[in-house]
Order: sequence, then structure tokens, then C-alpha cells
Amino acid sequence: MSEEIARRGMMLVLSSPSGAGKTTLARRLLEDDDGLEMSISCTTRPPRPGEQEGRDYFFVDHDRFIEMQSQDAFLEWAVVFDNRYGTPRKPVEDALSMGRDVLFDVDWQGAQKLRGNAARDVVSVFVLPPSARALEERLRQRAQDHEDVVKKRMQGASNEIQHWEEYDYVIVNSDVERSLAFLKAVLAAERVRRDRQTGIDPFVKSLLADL
Amino acid sequence: MSEEIARRGMMLVLSSPSGAGKTTLARRLLEDDDGLEMSISCTTRPPRPGEQEGRDYFFVDHDRFIEMQSQDAFLEWAVVFDNRYGTPRKPVEDALSMGRDVLFDVDWQGAQKLRGNAARDVVSVFVLPPSARALEERLRQRAQDHEDVVKKRMQGASNEIQHWEEYDYVIVNSDVERSLAFLKAVLAAERVRRDRQTGIDPFVKSLLADL
Repeated sequence: MSEEIARRGMMLVLSSPSGAGKTTLARRLLEDDDGLEMSISCTTRPPRPGEQEGRDYFFVDHDRFIEMQSQDAFLEWAVVFDNRYGTPRKPVEDALSMGRDVLFDVDWQGAQKLRGNAARDVVSVFVLPPSARALEERLRQRAQDHEDVVKKRMQGASNEIQHWEEYDYVIVNSDVERSLAFLKAVLAAERVRRDRQTGIDPFVKSLLADL
Repeated sequence: MSEEIARRGMMLVLSSPSGAGKTTLARRLLEDDDGLEMSISCTTRPPRPGEQEGRDYFFVDHDRFIEMQSQDAFLEWAVVFDNRYGTPRKPVEDALSMGRDVLFDVDWQGAQKLRGNAARDVVSVFVLPPSARALEERLRQRAQDHEDVVKKRMQGASNEIQHWEEYDYVIVNSDVERSLAFLKAVLAAERVRRDRQTGIDPFVKSLLADL
């Protein structure tokens, strides 16, 4: 009965300063939406206890990572504390072409690189904290009262927030359920965007032929 | 608690061939959404029984309509069977600047004119019938078996559908509740688009100042 139109998936890119609640939102969104999967990065850092190959990361050695870079196998990559992290292109491309959406939890630099490599597929959302005080409270809880760590994170938050204007959508996360509803609406709406529904053109052609 | 960010309203433009269910969708959407109002047109045709000034139409005489045209007071206007119909600019502009959204039920020509006059405010959705047969059945019910009327409407539907590519979103109306959910998602998502949230810039400035 309900007409299923083939579509190309989207890359849903979430950024925010740490402490704004992005990780919780991402987890909840993945739990509630069967058509959405998390992007899994490659990394050269060793697995931590409990981390699983192919679920948390693809663990590769330095030489293999460099080889993949030279093969243009990453949508974006970065060096963090001597370790390399990268988003492999192939699994994302496979998901998109099967009409599945892929979630990215990246900072403004990662978002810029993804846009640069796949502009038409990227839908980007910036999550803002409701106030500086709310952000500080959350960071303080996490840092367990190490004042210098809190200060450094507040500075980091400020740097991140300055890139809010590069995003398609902006959500002020004053309430998790409300923010989650907005994210679900973004997913649902972007799925019926004309240019993502690859099956609409043949559908209309056949409709017009029958009229 | 929940941060209310000031925003500029959008013009939600719905088009479809007659018989695709657009009128039902528009009515249901207006019933369920307090932030959305129907655009009310000016017309030179006389009121029909039961029609109310300011609710169904603004009824104006021919001279007044021409005067309004010369004052550029319409976002779009058209002549249909010797009568003039137009969308007055002022009430729409007032609604948008108060953060209210305005719904337009117009054909592809009306949609083109609205885009031409207010591109940044327009969000356009094309509603397709699930099949030629479903459309024909609905038209046949309405036309009460006047075969020539059905044929004319099928031709009209074909002309209208050929403009589907001009729209931001496309919905195949195989199920009213499902289509309604998509329309609500489009409204909710477009409301958190960065460039519609006029209050985000001052909000972020104050947030950064507090960090």
C-alpha cells in the first residue's frame, strides 16, 4: 500500500562543544531509528579494554593508515596526540547507496572536511548548551573538580561554538526530549527532500505515462 | 527552562494535482499546528453563500485590485475566468516577522511566483498521488461520472505533476497519516534551520561572552 521510493542516504553530522549533551542525543537517536547507523572510524591507537574491532573502531597500524591516506580512502582524517583517526570512505558510501543514513559525531574541523568531500550528502546540526552556566556545571561534574581541566574545556567549548554558523540546523539543548524530537524531524524531513529520493524520477515518469 | 529562540516564520507552499489529497493534508496540518496559519487571498469574484470576509477571502472590487497590483501589494496574483485572485503581501510579512508560519495551497505557477518574490522564506512541498489509477478514482468520484470532466482533470494533473522538480520536498501520498507526519517533520525541521532562527546570533554572542 504505502509507496516506498528508493532514496540515497544522508550523512547526519552532529557537532557541539563537549558538555552540551551531543553524545546522549546521538545514542538515543541511534536506539530509536532503524535506518541510521554510526560511522565507525579507523584509528592507529591501541584498543582500550572492552573496545571491539568493527564496533568501536577499526584498529589499524600506522603503515596501513598511511597507505589508506595515500589511496584517498578517508572522507576525513586527523592526528590527535600522535594517533591518527579517520573516517573510511567505503562503508559510508555503501550505506548511502543502500538508502541508509550515517551519523557522525565530529568537531567543526571534521564537519568542514566532510562537507568538503561530500557536500550534497551532508546534513549538519550544531547542538548548543542552554547557557554558559549549564555547560560549566556539566564539565565540572565530568572533570571531578579539576579546575584547570574545566577551564581548558570551557576554552575549547568557546572555540567550537564559534563555528555554529557553518551548520544547516542549530538546536539549543535545553531539554533532551525536545532536542531529540527536533533531530528526528530533521531526519524525517531530509528523507523526503526531492534530491535525496533517487526513486522519484522513475516513479513520476511511470505515473505520467499512465495518466 | 526551555530556551525559546526568536525566529522568522516560513511560507509553506503545498502543490499537487487536484485529487492527490492536498486539501485534506492542509486542513489536518492547520488543525494540529498552532504556529501555522492559512494564507488568505484577495479576490474580485463575489462571495459565495457561507463565505466570510477575512476568513475565506478578502473580497475587493476590480478597481481596488488593480490599485493594489500597481502598489506591488501582492506576492502573486492571477486571472482565473475573468476574476482576479492575489496573495496580499502585508499579512504574510507580518506573520513571518512574528515567527508565525503561513500555508499556501497554490499550483505550480503560484509556487513559482512566490519563490520569485520571497525565495528565502519559501519551503515548497509537492504532493504526488500513489498511482494514476488512485488519482483517476478520486477524480471520478468528484466529477460524478462526467467523463469529459475527468479527462480534463487528468490532463490538468499531468501538467501540474511535470513541475515536481521545482519543489524542495516531494511526498507520495499513499497514506494520509504518513504524509501528515512527513509534513509535520518538514515544519519542525525547517523551524530549527540556522538561517530561520533570527534569535540565535544574539543568543550565541551572549553565551560566548559568559564562557
